[in-house]
Amino acid sequence: MPDAQRGLAEQLDAADPLAHLRERFVDLPDEVIYLDGNSLGRPPAATLDRLDLEVRSVWARELVGAWEHWLDLPTDVGDLLGTTLLGARPGETVVADTTSINLYKLAWAAVAARPGRGTVVTSADNFPTDHYVLQGICAHQGLQLVTVPAAAEGGPDLGALERAIGPDVALVSLSLVDYRLGALTDMRTVNAQAHASGALVLWDLSHAAGAVPLALAADGADLAVGCTYKYLNAGPGAPAFLWVRGDLHATLTQPIWGWFGQRDQFAMATEYEPEPGIRRFMVSSPPVVLLRAVEAGVELLGEAGMERLRAKSLALTGMLIDLADAWLRELGFEVVTPRPEARRGGHVALRHADARRIGRALIEKAAVIPDFRGPDILRLAPVPIATRFVDVYDALARLRDLVRNGEHLDVEVTGRVT
Amino acid sequence: MPDAQRGLAEQLDAADPLAHLRERFVDLPDEVIYLDGNSLGRPPAATLDRLDLEVRSVWARELVGAWEHWLDLPTDVGDLLGTTLLGARPGETVVADTTSINLYKLAWAAVAARPGRGTVVTSADNFPTDHYVLQGICAHQGLQLVTVPAAAEGGPDLGALERAIGPDVALVSLSLVDYRLGALTDMRTVNAQAHASGALVLWDLSHAAGAVPLALAADGADLAVGCTYKYLNAGPGAPAFLWVRGDLHATLTQPIWGWFGQRDQFAMATEYEPEPGIRRFMVSSPPVVLLRAVEAGVELLGEAGMERLRAKSLALTGMLIDLADAWLRELGFEVVTPRPEARRGGHVALRHADARRIGRALIEKAAVIPDFRGPDILRLAPVPIATRFVDVYDALARLRDLVRNGEHLDVEVTGRVT
Repeated sequence: MPDAQRGLAEQLDAADPLAHLRERFVDLPDEVIYLDGNSLGRPPAATLDRLDLEVRSVWARELVGAWEHWLDLPTDVGDLLGTTLLGARPGETVVADTTSINLYKLAWAAVAARPGRGTVVTSADNFPTDHYVLQGICAHQGLQLVTVPAAAEGGPDLGALERAIGPDVALVSLSLVDYRLGALTDMRTVNAQAHASGALVLWDLSHAAGAVPLALAADGADLAVGCTYKYLNAGPGAPAFLWVRGDLHATLTQPIWGWFGQRDQFAMATEYEPEPGIRRFMVSSPPVVLLRAVEAGVELLGEAGMERLRAKSLALTGMLIDLADAWLRELGFEVVTPRPEARRGGHVALRHADARRIGRALIEKAAVIPDFRGPDILRLAPVPIATRFVDVYDALARLRDLVRNGEHLDVEVTGRVT
Repeated sequence: MPDAQRGLAEQLDAADPLAHLRERFVDLPDEVIYLDGNSLGRPPAATLDRLDLEVRSVWARELVGAWEHWLDLPTDVGDLLGTTLLGARPGETVVADTTSINLYKLAWAAVAARPGRGTVVTSADNFPTDHYVLQGICAHQGLQLVTVPAAAEGGPDLGALERAIGPDVALVSLSLVDYRLGALTDMRTVNAQAHASGALVLWDLSHAAGAVPLALAADGADLAVGCTYKYLNAGPGAPAFLWVRGDLHATLTQPIWGWFGQRDQFAMATEYEPEPGIRRFMVSSPPVVLLRAVEAGVELLGEAGMERLRAKSLALTGMLIDLADAWLRELGFEVVTPRPEARRGGHVALRHADARRIGRALIEKAAVIPDFRGPDILRLAPVPIATRFVDVYDALARLRDLVRNGEHLDVEVTGRVT
């Protein structure tokens, strides 16, 4: 069956309503199959034009006067992102700073809004920076950080999480899709668990935004952050987003008091008085040029539509899992991403004892770009806006042949990143 | 004499060793005279090429593998900036985050490094975001924020400052060049005052870096931050820098614990253990594309040389002050920037009761772009790398004629920024 599947993959590409969007990216050499868009998305061609325009026509010509409209970019692009990808209402999303800094601001604000509670809860398989940010806040404020174990299939163990959320918990902070195995947690269940104890929930959506449809407002979420350089394709270190449910704005004060959070900012008053709305979570001048990159990336996803992207993503990851089962098990691989579609994010994790070397060999010898997460995980992300079904077929066939032929055995692994 | 000065200005331009560097910027219409480079610098043409290259050739082609060298960009560009402009030693400067966030990180770290001391000192004419950041930290930690009065000519009153710095002071946080009047404070004196009481000093160099020569290491400074979108011409919201004297690194821990400050970052350990060096003050993925803009901006200043830039800057601001004295006093203007060269930063402030309307009229009717700072200050920055002596002459002549003819009287002022 698998050998007949390349024809099936070609048919799926021919019928794919999103197939044309692959041409909207700066092109890659034909043979390269990029499966690491969950780490760094590719540049849309529109982004190049938009950056050039912003520098040449706006910055260079309008100069300081451009701030009249640049001032609104963080919330304008925030609303575009929030309503297109997050299920946000207008006025709840801002693009600013970085994921870690936004996590810090919102986790700090959440803890301050629950005085007398001494516990923060997270999951063992949360992303390292999330652990670090929460460890810092807990250390500085004398709070206890409780880390619940991960479920075998990834994400927090929901039973352990429920037991951990008691009346002393101020904040639960989790990643919606875990960065290693790609497991998708049920947001609505966790929000309800936390709210039953009066705790707030802060979601890191870095591996979820643009990968799975989100309904933050409808699902009763409180707080969320995420990056734009993965599925949103806004480029390395592009600014992050943060989302705060509208009715919480007035109850939360973040710790970094800066002039972009100040009411009537250009009155230049010396006493801090934060804006009433989402801007109170801002600090500083926004990185204008990169906000345009976020805008271009979100517009492209909006043109595709999150429902269609998700349908294609599940078809791509489903095919990937089927091929891995058929071809790679005998070579020592195990699919460790959850198989139920409702539990699957946008990438697939394969476990193999020699995963790091195999990942390096794929890049060097087979023009397939995955990434590696220690100690033994190869991550493959067939990002639906830029990946064909034949790409998945060919990548898995190349991986099979490479390992079968032992081509990875003489590869040196020296890099810091992959 | 003033009327003969246009010929003198032309002669000075003809003899100016930096004159050719004006051509390195994306061009403006001939008639426009931009005097707001202390708020937002103009884009160097090289920046456009570099951004395009970074997106098209590095991000698009190397994709996630580019992180192998991108990882070092914050400290590579930091060292370039630090050694070119700050008088820093290698390994003491990083380009990351924003000025306000860097202020927060370093002020927080400084206070934590002086346990038992309950006071932070700043100056009444410090920039608003500096006040807000310090107010936040003091409010959250139960510290007292003492604000010393400004001197009449701008900057902190050094006598009042000396009296305020006692054994309870953990941190003195000041701007080296004040944003309104452009007064330059004597860094060496303040560092010595603070150190005599065991306090640390944190300098905001936003209006100083690229405007005046700095010798942070030689002058015994402890901590500094600053922006890159003013005299460094790196663009709106480009990342800021921070500098920490090398021997202090091990004694300081900043509050935002993120994965880019983590030792052996890609080991993905879940316990935070900061890098020993300057990277411990980083938090998150750097905004790569904008780091290239910082690099291009700093390289251009390096080509000019800070000593030559300062000499030309003093000649330009000196001419501006002379013309203002000669032409504008009778029209209600007063030069409020300090006259001694050792006390002057890179811009000149003119006080006038109708300054806001006059500033707006200059832009709309005379193609001269200054900026306004309430309630009554017009700021004029003849940035030496991009401004001719005839620009200063013509701008002042246009200002004189405009006010003399009452052309500003029917101008409406509605904008938020200028």
